[in-house]
Amino acid sequence: MSEAAFSPNEVSTVACVGAGVIGGGWVAHFLARGYRVRAWDPAPDAAAKLTRLVDRAWPALVELGLADGASPANLTVTGTLAEAVGEAHFVQESAPEKLDLKQKLLADIDAATPPGVVIASSTSGYGMTEMQVAAPAPERLVVGHPFNPPYLIPLVEVVGGELTADWAVEWAAEFYRHAGKSVITLSRELPGFIANRLQEAMWREALHMVANGEATVEQIDLSITDGPGLRWPLHGPCLTFHLAGGEGGMAHMLDHFGPSLKAPWTRLDAPELTPELRDRMVEGCHDEAGDRSIADLVRERDRAIIAVQRAVRAVREAGRG
Amino acid sequence: MSEAAFSPNEVSTVACVGAGVIGGGWVAHFLARGYRVRAWDPAPDAAAKLTRLVDRAWPALVELGLADGASPANLTVTGTLAEAVGEAHFVQESAPEKLDLKQKLLADIDAATPPGVVIASSTSGYGMTEMQVAAPAPERLVVGHPFNPPYLIPLVEVVGGELTADWAVEWAAEFYRHAGKSVITLSRELPGFIANRLQEAMWREALHMVANGEATVEQIDLSITDGPGLRWPLHGPCLTFHLAGGEGGMAHMLDHFGPSLKAPWTRLDAPELTPELRDRMVEGCHDEAGDRSIADLVRERDRAIIAVQRAVRAVREAGRG
Repeated sequence: MSEAAFSPNEVSTVACVGAGVIGGGWVAHFLARGYRVRAWDPAPDAAAKLTRLVDRAWPALVELGLADGASPANLTVTGTLAEAVGEAHFVQESAPEKLDLKQKLLADIDAATPPGVVIASSTSGYGMTEMQVAAPAPERLVVGHPFNPPYLIPLVEVVGGELTADWAVEWAAEFYRHAGKSVITLSRELPGFIANRLQEAMWREALHMVANGEATVEQIDLSITDGPGLRWPLHGPCLTFHLAGGEGGMAHMLDHFGPSLKAPWTRLDAPELTPELRDRMVEGCHDEAGDRSIADLVRERDRAIIAVQRAVRAVREAGRG
Repeated sequence: MSEAAFSPNEVSTVACVGAGVIGGGWVAHFLARGYRVRAWDPAPDAAAKLTRLVDRAWPALVELGLADGASPANLTVTGTLAEAVGEAHFVQESAPEKLDLKQKLLADIDAATPPGVVIASSTSGYGMTEMQVAAPAPERLVVGHPFNPPYLIPLVEVVGGELTADWAVEWAAEFYRHAGKSVITLSRELPGFIANRLQEAMWREALHMVANGEATVEQIDLSITDGPGLRWPLHGPCLTFHLAGGEGGMAHMLDHFGPSLKAPWTRLDAPELTPELRDRMVEGCHDEAGDRSIADLVRERDRAIIAVQRAVRAVREAGRG
């Protein structure tokens, strides 16, 4: 990371470009983690919008626990882009999803940001390779893709473009972790990154079912909230199926239920279950489970399902009250 | 429901056929809801297996709250199928997923079960139309598809086959609700039903990504547990995207992000977003939201994300302790 002007844990000032739901969510997150935030958006009412977004998010952030010195008063909304990024140790861009706009804006940000400062884009739709084309120092441009709302959902997906330097990707991942996020660094550009590909596959199958009159909107939502959705905050889809194999885990699951991958259970065809893919899934689950036995995982799953259901029920009842 | 021997709320004795993870899970669920359960499985160690399964599940069930009179002592493991189903007011079959076995077993169950008693299969892989072919009274055979573990995950998907009578489907749905389950009645047979189609679409996309070296098992799981998985216990995929549209809700989401359905964000192609599909999604979300405004939904989502994260963190910490 020799090219970075700062170590990730030395950052005290973050610039946020864009005052929409995602940009405002980042502002709230960084404020809650104790950073000074300088924000800019071309909209004339940017300051009012951002203040409203932060005010709405703050009670939740107080409940989650603020960093030392965290305060909404650490937000400065600037009149120009240069004033926002000129003093920043990190820049998060969250402009609308238009490629030409992103290309131009990232070039402008790059030109106005001090050397050695990493610039991240919140894009969900583009790869950095196609966005960094006009930037003077494209090696410091990365994708840092959050989930809505960025101040509550921990996940950030980090990936560079063809012109991005490795140090910038590593720096961004380390900075986000320091700033309280849960980070996945992709080894290469992939449309939709990881989480949205998974979410989108489910969403498209849902749209097909509604289009064909096979299920209603309400049935689809209920099938997730009262079904597999209760397991996913603790165990992702792989560990979930690791447990579906009983004591034999993922190996038994794939050897036993592998043929069901050919079943017309969704409109998406599965890949061929080669020995290599089987082994990769099995080893991945073993690595992820670590020293937790299947029985340990079942116990924690059961406890989590109960705890999650209770938590959700309390929220629903409070809403009705 | 003129053909049913009992009203769903008059049931006091349930027969469970099959002592695997799902069969045993049903036994635990029905015991916890205060039913007498008569269980049978051809395995010589069926009684020991079922007792172990119930003993393991019971602490969780006590924590969730038992029905009056609920006790593991209300379980009788019988030596023959006829002894299990002959006195039952409802039968739940959870045998291994082999079609010829299911056809034969359901015919045997049907022959030994008193008239007017509904018989449900836990199958996840077959339609009732293909399973009920050998049964003498196929009109009372339905699918009642649970999720693992059946004593903790509320969802049951209910659907009949071509020879199933409407009264049997309605009776089963009402009985499961009475027994504390969350029920979806499918309007027609659909391979994978609803929840597994959604889950399977995500799973197949995950397998493709691992097969292509685009993501690891651990990245896939983390992308869900620390990302969209935190929203799904409260809001299913449709309401989640209703909120992605801001104040404009699902209508704005589809009108604005509709083109992204053409993006290569998953290997599954989306359906054509016709005006009919758009309206069906929008109206479905409005129906589901009821009198909750977008702001109400955002508030409950944020509260739920915090509560779910806390619940999961506590379970993880207890596991390490």
